[in-house]
Amino acid sequence: MTAAAKNIDLAVVGSVAIDTIATPVARRERIMGGSVSYACAAASFFSVVGMVGIVGEDCSREYRSVFEHFGIDTCGLLTAAGKTFHWSGVYEADMNRRRTLATELNVFEHFSPQLPHAYQKAPFLLLANIAPQLQHLVLEQVASPLFVAADTMDLWIHSERDSLRSLLPRIDLLLLNDEEARLLAGQADLVKAAGTIQEWGADYVLIKKGEHGAMLAGKNEFLLLPAFPLTRIQDPTGAGDCFAGAFMGRLAGHGKQPDENTFRDALVHAAVVSAFCVEDFGMERLHPLTNGEIKSRIEEFRRMIV
Amino acid sequence: MTAAAKNIDLAVVGSVAIDTIATPVARRERIMGGSVSYACAAASFFSVVGMVGIVGEDCSREYRSVFEHFGIDTCGLLTAAGKTFHWSGVYEADMNRRRTLATELNVFEHFSPQLPHAYQKAPFLLLANIAPQLQHLVLEQVASPLFVAADTMDLWIHSERDSLRSLLPRIDLLLLNDEEARLLAGQADLVKAAGTIQEWGADYVLIKKGEHGAMLAGKNEFLLLPAFPLTRIQDPTGAGDCFAGAFMGRLAGHGKQPDENTFRDALVHAAVVSAFCVEDFGMERLHPLTNGEIKSRIEEFRRMIV
Repeated sequence: MTAAAKNIDLAVVGSVAIDTIATPVARRERIMGGSVSYACAAASFFSVVGMVGIVGEDCSREYRSVFEHFGIDTCGLLTAAGKTFHWSGVYEADMNRRRTLATELNVFEHFSPQLPHAYQKAPFLLLANIAPQLQHLVLEQVASPLFVAADTMDLWIHSERDSLRSLLPRIDLLLLNDEEARLLAGQADLVKAAGTIQEWGADYVLIKKGEHGAMLAGKNEFLLLPAFPLTRIQDPTGAGDCFAGAFMGRLAGHGKQPDENTFRDALVHAAVVSAFCVEDFGMERLHPLTNGEIKSRIEEFRRMIV
Repeated sequence: MTAAAKNIDLAVVGSVAIDTIATPVARRERIMGGSVSYACAAASFFSVVGMVGIVGEDCSREYRSVFEHFGIDTCGLLTAAGKTFHWSGVYEADMNRRRTLATELNVFEHFSPQLPHAYQKAPFLLLANIAPQLQHLVLEQVASPLFVAADTMDLWIHSERDSLRSLLPRIDLLLLNDEEARLLAGQADLVKAAGTIQEWGADYVLIKKGEHGAMLAGKNEFLLLPAFPLTRIQDPTGAGDCFAGAFMGRLAGHGKQPDENTFRDALVHAAVVSAFCVEDFGMERLHPLTNGEIKSRIEEFRRMIV
């Protein structure tokens, strides 16, 4: 089904999930989700992407067709006996708050990511949001990628702090949201929190602040990005994964060691693609999204930023 | 004491207060404060400013010397029998939260702002945060200023909503913070809230989001500004007033009908001056502040914004 000989710009490892989501606006049953799905879809607009993940036998051809639609290489997608990871959640009126109703790990419980040979040479690597132990496992399989980013979440900061801490010297950039940065660094001030995480080994820290934009602290760079202003949020699921995916996809598209200019460009694209994502459920808005729409919103966004 | 014949670029009307402030960092007894004091001090870096306010007999020469220091014209500063408006408050560990311990209106209770003749022709007018009825009174006294902005606060939105609503068609720009914008418009989404306030008559709505920056919605403009990242906040008092003052002072310094370019420039300067303000108590950081320091931080800030 997939072209195994592709030159992959960006390999992404993470979870594939079948999600049931209710927001104050509507509800969807069993739609495609997971960190690697969103991140790869977002990255696919800017570079050649390969995904590493696991699904169960219930992940039908119809579900998988979304990956084909985005031109994502799925050599690294394993199919195992059993059911696909399932998540179900409800968003409150303030969509920054959500409750998890069900988390069924299923085949994901015994997932041990295996990078296809072609992905091991990919210059860019995104360890999307999965357990840090799995992120470590992936790093054992790559030679010397140009740039490695890892995403994470509060769950791992609480339960796998040591594993996450020891990941930091092995990666170039850690992505996390503002609350997670405060939690990990034990520091309320975000600038100081980023500094602490840098001291622990990540050269770059990219803090996602949702509706308040993002902040990238680097060795020599310190960049501030407002969020694209949205008035029509249907479903926030996957926004952070899209941000990570578009950011790394755009860097990978430039095909060289990231510098301040490519970081700036990647940040603006990440904000815009994740803004599109939340305008509809799951990947429903990303699915018909065109490069022309992205370009036009990038121009609109750039005009807004002082 | 004051040069009555100055050509005033910007007239500012508001409260002069003597504040007692405690933050988690330290405490100050009876220091100069109030919306017009902070706004004029901030504006004074960029234009010739005249202040309209009222003080009591306890506002000694020493207190007033701060206005002289900033070169603020004080023709419009009345002295009345009695005590100066006094405010006392305590900031919590999260300095976004504060408790008022005492509010003594004193001479402010019967304040009826009178614009000196020279101020009535000032092209720029800032109605700093005071009761909307007083803001209306000031508008009766001016002919046709080029650009009028009004600041406000939650107190007036709760208690003087009609008066505030009827002010909107009489001004060009309303300044308020994010919570106040939501409260006034009855709309959680800030973009929509700004739109509602515009429909009610203010051509421009400038929403201050504190550590998350600001948003300016205009007739044809929509501008987003991140906040200057701060790691050393001593006292947030006056930050919003400084933002308003520096914004209007900078527009007034350009001396022409504001346009998108001067709005952009004024927003960046407003963010930087209010960032300086909170680095120390009251006006202690603004007092020794130089134009060189402002310029250098503006350059630093511009490099950060993607």
